[in-house]
Amino acid sequence: MEYRKIKDDDDEDAHDVASDLESLKGKSHTVASSNIALATLGGGGGSTERTNWKRKGVVTCALTILTSSQAILIVWSKRAGKYEYSVTTANFLVETLKCALSLLALTRIWKNEGVTDDNRLSTTYDEVKVFPIPAALYLFKNLLQYYIFAYVDAPGYQILKNLNIISTGVLYRIILKKKLSEIQWAGFILLCCGCTTAQLNSNSDRVLQTSLPGWIMAIVMALLSGFAGVYTEAIIKKRPSRNINVQNFWLYVFGMAFNAVAIVIQDFDAVANKGFFHGYSFITVLMILNHALSGIAVSMVMKYADNIVKVYSTSVAMLLTAVVSVFLFNFHLSLAFFLGSTVVSVSVYLHSAGKLR
Amino acid sequence: MEYRKIKDDDDEDAHDVASDLESLKGKSHTVASSNIALATLGGGGGSTERTNWKRKGVVTCALTILTSSQAILIVWSKRAGKYEYSVTTANFLVETLKCALSLLALTRIWKNEGVTDDNRLSTTYDEVKVFPIPAALYLFKNLLQYYIFAYVDAPGYQILKNLNIISTGVLYRIILKKKLSEIQWAGFILLCCGCTTAQLNSNSDRVLQTSLPGWIMAIVMALLSGFAGVYTEAIIKKRPSRNINVQNFWLYVFGMAFNAVAIVIQDFDAVANKGFFHGYSFITVLMILNHALSGIAVSMVMKYADNIVKVYSTSVAMLLTAVVSVFLFNFHLSLAFFLGSTVVSVSVYLHSAGKLR
Repeated sequence: MEYRKIKDDDDEDAHDVASDLESLKGKSHTVASSNIALATLGGGGGSTERTNWKRKGVVTCALTILTSSQAILIVWSKRAGKYEYSVTTANFLVETLKCALSLLALTRIWKNEGVTDDNRLSTTYDEVKVFPIPAALYLFKNLLQYYIFAYVDAPGYQILKNLNIISTGVLYRIILKKKLSEIQWAGFILLCCGCTTAQLNSNSDRVLQTSLPGWIMAIVMALLSGFAGVYTEAIIKKRPSRNINVQNFWLYVFGMAFNAVAIVIQDFDAVANKGFFHGYSFITVLMILNHALSGIAVSMVMKYADNIVKVYSTSVAMLLTAVVSVFLFNFHLSLAFFLGSTVVSVSVYLHSAGKLR
Repeated sequence: MEYRKIKDDDDEDAHDVASDLESLKGKSHTVASSNIALATLGGGGGSTERTNWKRKGVVTCALTILTSSQAILIVWSKRAGKYEYSVTTANFLVETLKCALSLLALTRIWKNEGVTDDNRLSTTYDEVKVFPIPAALYLFKNLLQYYIFAYVDAPGYQILKNLNIISTGVLYRIILKKKLSEIQWAGFILLCCGCTTAQLNSNSDRVLQTSLPGWIMAIVMALLSGFAGVYTEAIIKKRPSRNINVQNFWLYVFGMAFNAVAIVIQDFDAVANKGFFHGYSFITVLMILNHALSGIAVSMVMKYADNIVKVYSTSVAMLLTAVVSVFLFNFHLSLAFFLGSTVVSVSVYLHSAGKLR
């Protein structure tokens, strides 16, 4: 219920963001022209607002459901045994699949609407030069992840990952220059506290003993992840009329390239000796499929909503996962989970109620 | 900082509450006349607002500090060994001491200002008939407390006691008819979640296994405690110009009477065989002194602020206690404590920011 309200409110901002971004990048588009662009994107007519609202709702729900099922697949695969495949090859396949799906969507669009300036695949150096940056940031973050485990254990890392919420909020404010009200900031701090509380268990206090290098790495990783997210939003929203599938195609092409580098750096021996697909199972294939679809949903949320909606969506997904796990895996929900979920729910309400007028 | 802001905002309501209460009780006082009454109370002149604000600040800080030191004395006394004295005799002495202190304050006031209608001790049946009710409610709650331990252990009871926060808010709304904004309600739910989170430990999940009778008793106790608090506020604010020390005197006289009954019911044998003061130590005396002063501070907060300020004050006191205990008793603060404290801080901010305009 409350979640729906957020999306509702956020919609009113779509135009402002677009115009903010235009002015940020020093383009000459006026608010009126970006409104026209959005109207075109929405299929034209007076129902732009409603079309935007619907699209935002659909992509946000899709992201929430895909993220929940992702976590459930991970639990399932852990129950089935240890990962036997190379994670880097799986990541490469995820990028490849996303690329293929974007091309598939584009061929359908070309057939129906013909090739236009906004949906043609060819690009300029000026447009494409920023697309490798998010992929490079994620690669760097993933490499750091191997080193942080020298300082923090895996459950501790799960807790520190909640710093992403704060870093996304701060970078969203600084880079996209979009304002959150004080009440929304309060909600954002609560989202971070609530998610962490929901994950508390008897070993969580160990994370407080993290050494200084561990904290620094955790903060750097949170900043890298937040920056990659916010930068992706900036790239995708820079030209609102550009077809999202073209933008995705170029993002994922660079994702494939950087993940190919990761295979060489991290798993060259394993792949050379045991083959590219060693250790793949049915569940691995499901996980790759899920990751690809979630990745596309994230891009869509960036295009039609924003990073804040993305963070709320994935946080709510985390709670949904736990509830579904009660039925699937006989999980027991802790008191901390109930408290954390309540705090997250209040946070969602505050994000909506605290909307700047 | 943020806490100061709340008190600031709440002050604007003092007049409304008084007039609400008058209309609630069917009195013919107008808003103007209760304003005059408050001005008289504040020493007259144009600085009523500021005087009220100062007094509210002082009593709230006093309550916070006294409540923190109360909890510290309890920890100290537990370290020193088990309670050896009869709790009912100590409660009786607390009421007697409060009575004596109220009389002492009154004799000074009579000397300085002379005896007036508002500060005379003599009362009417109509005024005094409601004063036994809070004492009776507390007595009933304290008796129930002995039975709830059949269903819940002591740490579980500490967690369930946070239901008081919600019950106070709900009864405050229903009985005093004073409105909280939606943001303030969100803050109140967060206060309850934050306090509970701060108290989480590895055994907290046991509270989820509480049986239905245990839950019912916990909820009844929360309602009794909330009702006693809200009813006390209603009594004290019913006649704003009445001297608080006279009101306290009558409250505490009935407190003494009901606690005398409790001694007979619960500790008659122990007192008859071992004497009234058996097992008293220096720390017992300190605890009695502290309870008496905290009790008076609670009355003052009811008079010059309200139950909501009281709940926030005692919740912040709980967090202060934990921080002070780090230095005094080498306590370790848990991650849950940090998360809970952050949620409580945000809640205090929301109570202030969500002020109805």
